[in-house]
Amino acid sequence: MKVNGRHYRTIWLNEKDRSTVQVIDQRKLPFTFAVLDLRTVEEFRAAIQDMAVRGAGLIGATAGYGMYIAALTSPQEDALAFIEAAAKSLVATRPTASNLAWAVNRQLAAARSCRSREAMIRTALDTAQAIADGDAEACRRIGEHGKAVILELAQKKKRGEPVHILTHCNAGWLAFVDNGTATAPLYAAFDAGVKLHVWVDETRPRNQGASLTAWELGQHGVPHDLITDNAGGHLMQHGLVDLVITGADRVARNGDVANKIGTYLKALAARDNAVPFYVALPSSTFDFECTDGVSSIPIEERDPGEVRFMTGRSADGSLATVQLCPDETPARNWGFDVTPSRLVTRLICERGLCEASEAGILGLFPERKA
Amino acid sequence: MKVNGRHYRTIWLNEKDRSTVQVIDQRKLPFTFAVLDLRTVEEFRAAIQDMAVRGAGLIGATAGYGMYIAALTSPQEDALAFIEAAAKSLVATRPTASNLAWAVNRQLAAARSCRSREAMIRTALDTAQAIADGDAEACRRIGEHGKAVILELAQKKKRGEPVHILTHCNAGWLAFVDNGTATAPLYAAFDAGVKLHVWVDETRPRNQGASLTAWELGQHGVPHDLITDNAGGHLMQHGLVDLVITGADRVARNGDVANKIGTYLKALAARDNAVPFYVALPSSTFDFECTDGVSSIPIEERDPGEVRFMTGRSADGSLATVQLCPDETPARNWGFDVTPSRLVTRLICERGLCEASEAGILGLFPERKA
Repeated sequence: MKVNGRHYRTIWLNEKDRSTVQVIDQRKLPFTFAVLDLRTVEEFRAAIQDMAVRGAGLIGATAGYGMYIAALTSPQEDALAFIEAAAKSLVATRPTASNLAWAVNRQLAAARSCRSREAMIRTALDTAQAIADGDAEACRRIGEHGKAVILELAQKKKRGEPVHILTHCNAGWLAFVDNGTATAPLYAAFDAGVKLHVWVDETRPRNQGASLTAWELGQHGVPHDLITDNAGGHLMQHGLVDLVITGADRVARNGDVANKIGTYLKALAARDNAVPFYVALPSSTFDFECTDGVSSIPIEERDPGEVRFMTGRSADGSLATVQLCPDETPARNWGFDVTPSRLVTRLICERGLCEASEAGILGLFPERKA
Repeated sequence: MKVNGRHYRTIWLNEKDRSTVQVIDQRKLPFTFAVLDLRTVEEFRAAIQDMAVRGAGLIGATAGYGMYIAALTSPQEDALAFIEAAAKSLVATRPTASNLAWAVNRQLAAARSCRSREAMIRTALDTAQAIADGDAEACRRIGEHGKAVILELAQKKKRGEPVHILTHCNAGWLAFVDNGTATAPLYAAFDAGVKLHVWVDETRPRNQGASLTAWELGQHGVPHDLITDNAGGHLMQHGLVDLVITGADRVARNGDVANKIGTYLKALAARDNAVPFYVALPSSTFDFECTDGVSSIPIEERDPGEVRFMTGRSADGSLATVQLCPDETPARNWGFDVTPSRLVTRLICERGLCEASEAGILGLFPERKA
């Protein structure tokens, strides 16, 4: 998507120096746009661990390129042993990120099929590019399928009135290689000339809406307003939201959606006001083993400091962290909640739209039938 | 309620120096507990205008004491003219605070009925104390009526398990003279030995939950945890909330409840999970002229800076304000929302409990029947 008017992905090979991979350093957003050079396996490890890159799709793509750099920097003798050690160290950076292990294993299998170090390097680069391109393409398709939903809503609006779309958290292109999931339909519709306006939930406690989604939309020129997480119900009650789209962290076989904490409250408000509620996700986010999301998806409890403190830019331009509550106040901090499938209008994935139900999902994924 | 183990109201006459009224300076909470002396009408004006005192009940009580100080500092000649000028200047500090005008007018009528300056002073002090005592007593009664609800829930819990109560914003004693409205039942039940635990919504954008409610509960020793506004749905879905109690800014004749933005989302989650949802209010908060809250209560839109920036205590102990979003990000900021009466289990006011409906409300207020 666009940054300062120029097209970017979140990760790319430096075409002038093919021993360098470049990423947007997301720790500095939204206040500074900085590009980080990654040239060694150690630098890849650090970028993933310190969250210079984050988001399911982007972590996978970064691991893919990291394995290419492993091949490129491997010794002439025992290249495969070096690559295998790199694989292990990359996977250890964020053990629960399923796309990371998936990308690393895909690279490992490719390396093991090669006869020479030179072939390993060539294959690793092809595989890394294929992983990144695959992610961007899945998101692009999600955008096309979702665009149709927005176009239909646009036709019902009076001339000149925008389609108002509410989103929660950041399921934007910054979390993937390009396009994003929840944002892909917005970008596709906007680029096709549809008049739209986005309500951006700030998304406490980590403020991914205020810091990342607002930045993305602003850079791409999509009209938007930042709101508190508390505001969406009021907006829907007064006809100011035509559509809600969020991403997902995991979708169960029965269509229940685990996503950033607070998503469930927006789904309830959408239902109460007859606003369509869509969830966009790549097919890798389905958990076909999980038959009931509400009762069985484990919900991570995170550092209470995320609730008690907040970080932003202070008046002198430096980043600063402030405490919001008394010293002795305890806090609890769940990262996600589960929206029951009955509140979800449709799921959007790269294969198309489906009902949020086992029958609906298996209609798109017939190979998953028991 | 208790502060550092000692009982306080939010406002009181200094018994050793009856020319001084003292208030808790709420601008410094939760980080500093400071008492502010008010000795002149100008100091009262400033305290109300700069929000050293805030909250419907407390603003009314402050205006009442301000009128006493006006009488006390009036000249021997033309005391009534001085008092009338003071009344005008006090009302102008916060023109939309209905309790302010009500308290000032009550004092004005009392002063006009007096024959001497000395009688005016005596009457003004009696009236100020009566206004403050009346506020505290109304809140105490709300506490007694609400305590019965909590006791009933406590009887259904297993031995040793606390009653979990969720509240939004600050309808605590800091907003009134003592006890508060939403918090009054909690304090009454806690003081009676009921085991309970409170989930405190931080209440973006102004964080009254994190800064005021958490402080109040901590000082009084009531177990609680601070949570983001996003978390309540997840908690209710998993049986971790037995009761929701909020305050109200205005309640329509049909039972619709205007309260801090985000209240409606909690009411939806309560309904979806069969959690009782109570609203506590003094009878002065009913708007008997308003027959439909959702469609006709005007919702104030406030400074977008409250969404874009946040203030807290920085590492060096000073108060600091940080920016949360890109420079160019626009924001919108509605202060309240309206919860439809169908989502409200019962209203609690000083006269007792009633259904959130015209029939229910008029059952408690038969004098309001058309």
